[in-house]
Amino acid sequence: MQIKPASECHWDLISLGEVMLRFDPGDKRIATARSFEVYEGGGEYNVARGLKRCFGMRTAIVTAITDNPIGCLLEDLISQGGVDQSLIQWVEFDGVGRSARNGLNFTERGFGVRPAVGCYDRGHTAVSQLKPGDVDWDEIFGKRGARWFHTGGIFCGLSASTPEVALEAMKAAKRSGSVVSYDLNYRDSLWRSAGGKKRAEEVNRRLAPFVDVIFGDFSALGFEMPDQARALEESIGAMVSQFRFKVVATTLRKAKTATRQDCGAICYSEGKFHQAPQRTDLEVFDCVGAGDAFASGLIYGYLSGRDPQSSVELGAADCAITDE
Amino acid sequence: MQIKPASECHWDLISLGEVMLRFDPGDKRIATARSFEVYEGGGEYNVARGLKRCFGMRTAIVTAITDNPIGCLLEDLISQGGVDQSLIQWVEFDGVGRSARNGLNFTERGFGVRPAVGCYDRGHTAVSQLKPGDVDWDEIFGKRGARWFHTGGIFCGLSASTPEVALEAMKAAKRSGSVVSYDLNYRDSLWRSAGGKKRAEEVNRRLAPFVDVIFGDFSALGFEMPDQARALEESIGAMVSQFRFKVVATTLRKAKTATRQDCGAICYSEGKFHQAPQRTDLEVFDCVGAGDAFASGLIYGYLSGRDPQSSVELGAADCAITDE
Amino acid sequence: MQIKPASECHWDLISLGEVMLRFDPGDKRIATARSFEVYEGGGEYNVARGLKRCFGMRTAIVTAITDNPIGCLLEDLISQGGVDQSLIQWVEFDGVGRSARNGLNFTERGFGVRPAVGCYDRGHTAVSQLKPGDVDWDEIFGKRGARWFHTGGIFCGLSASTPEVALEAMKAAKRSGSVVSYDLNYRDSLWRSAGGKKRAEEVNRRLAPFVDVIFGDFSALGFEMPDQARALEESIGAMVSQFRFKVVATTLRKAKTATRQDCGAICYSEGKFHQAPQRTDLEVFDCVGAGDAFASGLIYGYLSGRDPQSSVELGAADCAITDE
Amino acid sequence: MQIKPASECHWDLISLGEVMLRFDPGDKRIATARSFEVYEGGGEYNVARGLKRCFGMRTAIVTAITDNPIGCLLEDLISQGGVDQSLIQWVEFDGVGRSARNGLNFTERGFGVRPAVGCYDRGHTAVSQLKPGDVDWDEIFGKRGARWFHTGGIFCGLSASTPEVALEAMKAAKRSGSVVSYDLNYRDSLWRSAGGKKRAEEVNRRLAPFVDVIFGDFSALGFEMPDQARALEESIGAMVSQFRFKVVATTLRKAKTATRQDCGAICYSEGKFHQAPQRTDLEVFDCVGAGDAFASGLIYGYLSGRDPQSSVELGAADCAITDE
Amino acid sequence: MQIKPASECHWDLISLGEVMLRFDPGDKRIATARSFEVYEGGGEYNVARGLKRCFGMRTAIVTAITDNPIGCLLEDLISQGGVDQSLIQWVEFDGVGRSARNGLNFTERGFGVRPAVGCYDRGHTAVSQLKPGDVDWDEIFGKRGARWFHTGGIFCGLSASTPEVALEAMKAAKRSGSVVSYDLNYRDSLWRSAGGKKRAEEVNRRLAPFVDVIFGDFSALGFEMPDQARALEESIGAMVSQFRFKVVATTLRKAKTATRQDCGAICYSEGKFHQAPQRTDLEVFDCVGAGDAFASGLIYGYLSGRDPQSSVELGAADCAITDE
Amino acid sequence: MQIKPASECHWDLISLGEVMLRFDPGDKRIATARSFEVYEGGGEYNVARGLKRCFGMRTAIVTAITDNPIGCLLEDLISQGGVDQSLIQWVEFDGVGRSARNGLNFTERGFGVRPAVGCYDRGHTAVSQLKPGDVDWDEIFGKRGARWFHTGGIFCGLSASTPEVALEAMKAAKRSGSVVSYDLNYRDSLWRSAGGKKRAEEVNRRLAPFVDVIFGDFSALGFEMPDQARALEESIGAMVSQFRFKVVATTLRKAKTATRQDCGAICYSEGKFHQAPQRTDLEVFDCVGAGDAFASGLIYGYLSGRDPQSSVELGAADCAITDE
Repeated sequence: MQIKPASECHWDLISLGEVMLRFDPGDKRIATARSFEVYEGGGEYNVARGLKRCFGMRTAIVTAITDNPIGCLLEDLISQGGVDQSLIQWVEFDGVGRSARNGLNFTERGFGVRPAVGCYDRGHTAVSQLKPGDVDWDEIFGKRGARWFHTGGIFCGLSASTPEVALEAMKAAKRSGSVVSYDLNYRDSLWRSAGGKKRAEEVNRRLAPFVDVIFGDFSALGFEMPDQARALEESIGAMVSQFRFKVVATTLRKAKTATRQDCGAICYSEGKFHQAPQRTDLEVFDCVGAGDAFASGLIYGYLSGRDPQSSVELGAADCAITDE
Repeated sequence: MQIKPASECHWDLISLGEVMLRFDPGDKRIATARSFEVYEGGGEYNVARGLKRCFGMRTAIVTAITDNPIGCLLEDLISQGGVDQSLIQWVEFDGVGRSARNGLNFTERGFGVRPAVGCYDRGHTAVSQLKPGDVDWDEIFGKRGARWFHTGGIFCGLSASTPEVALEAMKAAKRSGSVVSYDLNYRDSLWRSAGGKKRAEEVNRRLAPFVDVIFGDFSALGFEMPDQARALEESIGAMVSQFRFKVVATTLRKAKTATRQDCGAICYSEGKFHQAPQRTDLEVFDCVGAGDAFASGLIYGYLSGRDPQSSVELGAADCAITDE
Repeated sequence: MQIKPASECHWDLISLGEVMLRFDPGDKRIATARSFEVYEGGGEYNVARGLKRCFGMRTAIVTAITDNPIGCLLEDLISQGGVDQSLIQWVEFDGVGRSARNGLNFTERGFGVRPAVGCYDRGHTAVSQLKPGDVDWDEIFGKRGARWFHTGGIFCGLSASTPEVALEAMKAAKRSGSVVSYDLNYRDSLWRSAGGKKRAEEVNRRLAPFVDVIFGDFSALGFEMPDQARALEESIGAMVSQFRFKVVATTLRKAKTATRQDCGAICYSEGKFHQAPQRTDLEVFDCVGAGDAFASGLIYGYLSGRDPQSSVELGAADCAITDE
Repeated sequence: MQIKPASECHWDLISLGEVMLRFDPGDKRIATARSFEVYEGGGEYNVARGLKRCFGMRTAIVTAITDNPIGCLLEDLISQGGVDQSLIQWVEFDGVGRSARNGLNFTERGFGVRPAVGCYDRGHTAVSQLKPGDVDWDEIFGKRGARWFHTGGIFCGLSASTPEVALEAMKAAKRSGSVVSYDLNYRDSLWRSAGGKKRAEEVNRRLAPFVDVIFGDFSALGFEMPDQARALEESIGAMVSQFRFKVVATTLRKAKTATRQDCGAICYSEGKFHQAPQRTDLEVFDCVGAGDAFASGLIYGYLSGRDPQSSVELGAADCAITDE
Repeated sequence: MQIKPASECHWDLISLGEVMLRFDPGDKRIATARSFEVYEGGGEYNVARGLKRCFGMRTAIVTAITDNPIGCLLEDLISQGGVDQSLIQWVEFDGVGRSARNGLNFTERGFGVRPAVGCYDRGHTAVSQLKPGDVDWDEIFGKRGARWFHTGGIFCGLSASTPEVALEAMKAAKRSGSVVSYDLNYRDSLWRSAGGKKRAEEVNRRLAPFVDVIFGDFSALGFEMPDQARALEESIGAMVSQFRFKVVATTLRKAKTATRQDCGAICYSEGKFHQAPQRTDLEVFDCVGAGDAFASGLIYGYLSGRDPQSSVELGAADCAITDE
Repeated sequence: MQIKPASECHWDLISLGEVMLRFDPGDKRIATARSFEVYEGGGEYNVARGLKRCFGMRTAIVTAITDNPIGCLLEDLISQGGVDQSLIQWVEFDGVGRSARNGLNFTERGFGVRPAVGCYDRGHTAVSQLKPGDVDWDEIFGKRGARWFHTGGIFCGLSASTPEVALEAMKAAKRSGSVVSYDLNYRDSLWRSAGGKKRAEEVNRRLAPFVDVIFGDFSALGFEMPDQARALEESIGAMVSQFRFKVVATTLRKAKTATRQDCGAICYSEGKFHQAPQRTDLEVFDCVGAGDAFASGLIYGYLSGRDPQSSVELGAADCAITDE
């Protein structure tokens, strides 16, 4: 897989996706909490943030934020995260949040037999209203340059127009020689009232031909996601033969309880399979974003010139640590 | 003004309005905070809560809440507030917040020359989608009985249908002999994209004929709101002659800084004016809800059989303490 | 076991017991803490609260609270818990706490090999001074109606008069056709200076003939509490033959460390034994109230018309989650 | 006034009084708080602590503490305060708090027009059960030596036996040549059910002949406490002629609001009056213990050989700063 | 005063100075606190941060940071502040802090009559070891370009070599046509063991000829700093005639108490004096950095093409709000 | 081993070492934290504190503290810890921390596969500048008396002069008949730029002849530290034959993850080996100071007249609980 040299590009990676405020009640439960800590997060954004914070890569986020104090808090958090914000589209606030708002995500951690719980509040966001033509992709990929472009199934589930934006971006990225990666992340809540998994699959299949590196939940592309390595390799083989992916990678996680998990990873690359060592009985503090950490570690492997085996190991380690 | 005896009514007061989560960054500013305390609040609701918590009245809230963990947190907070929740309409959650969500309100306190700042996130809420016919007002006022009904200009600014709901409720309340009060609270952010103050005025004027006790910002009804007592009395006279209000009451607050205010109140009742003692240089910890506290204290005065002078003094004292 | 239909009763369950403020130093230890979070709790109350919060049942607490700011905090916490407070007896405060006070409970969680530690401060409480005649049980059970009455060995250990109150309540409950349950909870600290376990056993045996459903530590009734299922069934058999209990239920918990436990449960009902699946190596965040959660889940099973097997499983699951 | 040299005494000052846990809800109110910070405090103890922390004096507290985790927390807090604990009597805990407990004090700060609120929970404490003979005063004052002994009207209001303990201590102190001071602090809550102010006055008058330095609220000794300096001096004159006090000192505080106060002080010494400069419009963060700080500063003045004018100024400054 | 256009420069402003961790005990005092909030701060840095956060300017900080977790926390905080970190020099950590460490600053706020207290822990820092030649100033000012260069008396008090670094930078800045500003900030603690105010004055006088815009405490340059406007203007006149400053600006603040201040400002520019409106009785939350905020506002005035009167008003307003 | 009776000594144990502020970001990581809790700590000090807090021994610390608010916070924390501070040397502060400062230690806990991280900031501390002659050891050991003297390899790694101070103290202790113990604690960070482990070994070997009881990492004395009991006993045998130690004791800990450890201990005494029971899979909250707790427990065993087997078990239990 050909990756453009760092010296020719302004950015190492561009991510396209939503950045939400994450409200975390700590040890408490959402419904009885009286205070929340607040972070920023979002599947595609987390990859850009991880590459910057853990690995020092130059990353930027393409998204839209409604211009109010909540948006300014997002800006403050992204600043702390170190991700370049110059490509963010700021959308006028109507004073109430009818025309455009910012996405929120309330999550609690779970403990032992009690599972983690999340509650999205991300309808009518500015980013869900992005449409083709809003972003000057040729300026980004053609003129300034980026070595890698990443987006995924969460962004594409935000509305009917977001897959069109992703498609437009992928085409521009490919034209410029950037690697394109896509995380198949499927969120039932996003698609429930918009065609369900069937529709998600259609959207993903329409984008897949433009993807070099694919992550995640293969079932969202209409393939099996079996537990056993053998069958998994077959499934990946089928995907590759149909879509010509250069790299296919996924974690193999099994949550025994909310606080104890097994974690491994597999990566297909140019006809070969590579596996990260399986970690068992990992003590888990907070499992949110572990899949994004995996993508972030693996992409860094490739961006830094490592081979596929090293890259998948880096991804799996990053996933286990769920570092910053 | 005739008030039904407590023994004939299941509730002392019914409020109609939105209950939002209020996110409070404490000493910090919204845009740089990392944690928020959370309360419940809402102009009309605050009156019901104050009557329950400070004065032990039996109050209920009519509103709609989207059924997700955020809604459950609202339920938990309202439980703590002691307001009867049996009339709340629970609306199905779509997993994202596109069809219906719960209102949020980010507020910071201000200090000295820095004013308090608020940021609504209350578009597309369940309560804004309430429409005539959703609530069985005759069951509430006719069968079970309430001595007083309260709503206001914030609820009526939520959408095009909410004034219709208010109208329907007022008519049922009057039919049953309940006192009807209305707080003219004008929020520019709510009306900015919906016809502005002119439209608010039209809505308020359409409801005014059904109102017995009117609170607040007379300009939202198309009357002057002068600083001087003399001129204010004239303005009230004009209102009364046009709309036949039995009671007209408003606070006279002047914020010297975010932390120092003067606070007084005036109450017109059956041809006479009553003034609460003017308090100067009040140290202010948090001015949110002071107007609602005034309404709450004054209504309690009437519900407990006090005369207008005592009632306006009670309201003004409650406003100064901003209890709870 | 016959349970009155919900439509004929104002409440699903009435609990009789103390509600204490629980002071929790979080990760810290009591003796070196500088701040405490505060909750409300109490063995019998927890059952009423769990039935309301987890299962939506209409429950009330019968207790006495001293009328001071600490009592008002209890009221605020019980409001949040959703349990009906209209039957609470408010006792005048003397300004110091000589004549009557409110119970406090300082608890720390333990971690690993360090056990949880508790420190009661519940002498001279208002509730410990309750005596026969203070509560109008016929109004509660006879006129308004309750499907179930619950109390237990903690309430009966508060003073010499509390077992008399429990007896009076049980008799009224049975007269009205309510199910009567009793949790044998034995607290050495309560009985140490009041006759010890021998006296607790006498008290429990005096009440047992009025009990339909008995929970807990059989040794407090003078029976064996063996580890093995076989022997346990024999012990239960002996209890049933002596006291004619309709249901006998207990958890089988084994704390390997403060943070790791095994948890199962057994329920005898009409001649048959039912076991909940044994959960091993549960990660424990806070074990306080797990037994109460079991009672709460099992009672809900019966109140909602489930069979004994489902009910004990519900109880055991609730115990494992220790919800809220 | 003769003061023994430091080199001849093991301690500079011995205080006799209760040490309570103070629970502080911060910006919140007691009745709606969910967490409390905890400090130690008590009128007589505060003087010993202030002398140690602000002025480096060697001070000890004579009190009784019930031996449970709450008592250990008191010990930890007193350790931090630096006051010698070797004279504390540890009383056995019965597991519940029926026979002896530790005193608690819930206080909220007040703000602006809302006054500070306190709620004692100090009935049945170990210290209230101290009786003559429990403490070996001759060992303390006769053998080891202390330059100054301090107690006051709060300790003497705890029970019928505490004034007897104070008397016994004062006599031993005087025998050894120690200066004896007494703060007339009158707490209505302590005396309400024990004879009221009239009884407090009797108790204070019985102790007064053994007092060298008297602080505080003269009305608790049956004298006027007028606002004007002239009349105040007359009142002091009457006190001195009756009781032969060597020093009479009191603050002149006027709380305009909970957050704004005026603060001055007057000190009579050997026929002359000394006044500290009047401070107006002091911003007040927390007024608890300001009177104790005054006593502490003034006593330090005398212990360090300063003249009465310097001493009262030191006391007034300490009161204004309410250090630590 | 000539300012280069934004389009010709990579940065609007470069600041040279130390960035410390600021440890803040909140409402508590340093000596008895058990937790601290942490911010970043530093006189020269604050100007760059304010210009970025309040006014959106592109600013960078030139400093040195020791490469350990404390340094990484500084990096995280500066990221949040939005100031460009690409010019920071990272210095190797020896594991202990003997050869180089990072500066810390413990500060408490003061309240009413209690003054704010600070405690530096900034000896042996990496930045104090900066020396001429360490920074490539020609690359910064000559090649990439900056419209404005700012440093001050705190940086120049760090060691014997830092004034040399400032001089080197000023010369490069002037060569490139950048405006040079200098804040005379005098910190007694920095100079106490290094020649005192006399030495500070010598250092400042040596740098003054290269300064266009001078802020602050004129006494650190050997001139009078009188209270009265008239005399102040004379003093400024003397400074200008000696050093040819283009702009001389200073705040006129008077702290009545730690929580109440008067605040005004004066600005000399090209032969004329401009005064900001005097604000009296400002309620002060935290006065740290108010002088830096003034510089930041005034510089923004000039950078955005405003006239001197607008610029000084902007500075004074920024100072009053002490934003962020 | 002969230990002086308690009645002949003013102290049970004197420790010589540094006391640092420990900054703890709780659940967070240092580099992204915004607040820190603060404790006091230090290898040698922890032993004195543990003996006081867990076992009631009279202990004192010999150290030096720079006299500024940070030092006062240390004083406040040590007061809370109960360790006698009368032997602390207070060193003048220069206002900046160039000549002398106080040591800081930033630590984060680790979780699961993420290891605990620490960052020292302890260069140029007052205590590292202690030199022979600064402390009057004959006054301490000869006149007032101490039963036990403890120091260790951390103190001796602070500078070139600290081993000389330790030597001076050990000699005085031995002259007076005190037991001397030494913990071989090796910190790479301290020695990295001062001769490394080789130099540490030389220092330790020079002190070893004066040591009665040796703890810790034998490799810092040039001996093997094998995993297996058999080989370990041989290594201890070699140490004893060379240095004539009376007691050699060490924990045998193995961290499986940051949150799960095995923990055992071995103690050689007068020709015999004693082992504490091996605890496996201990859940670990915070492993800092576990070795010091071991020393503290074992020393208490000897001071209270227990035999070696009981003493090593006490040490191991204390280590497992890591109490206070």
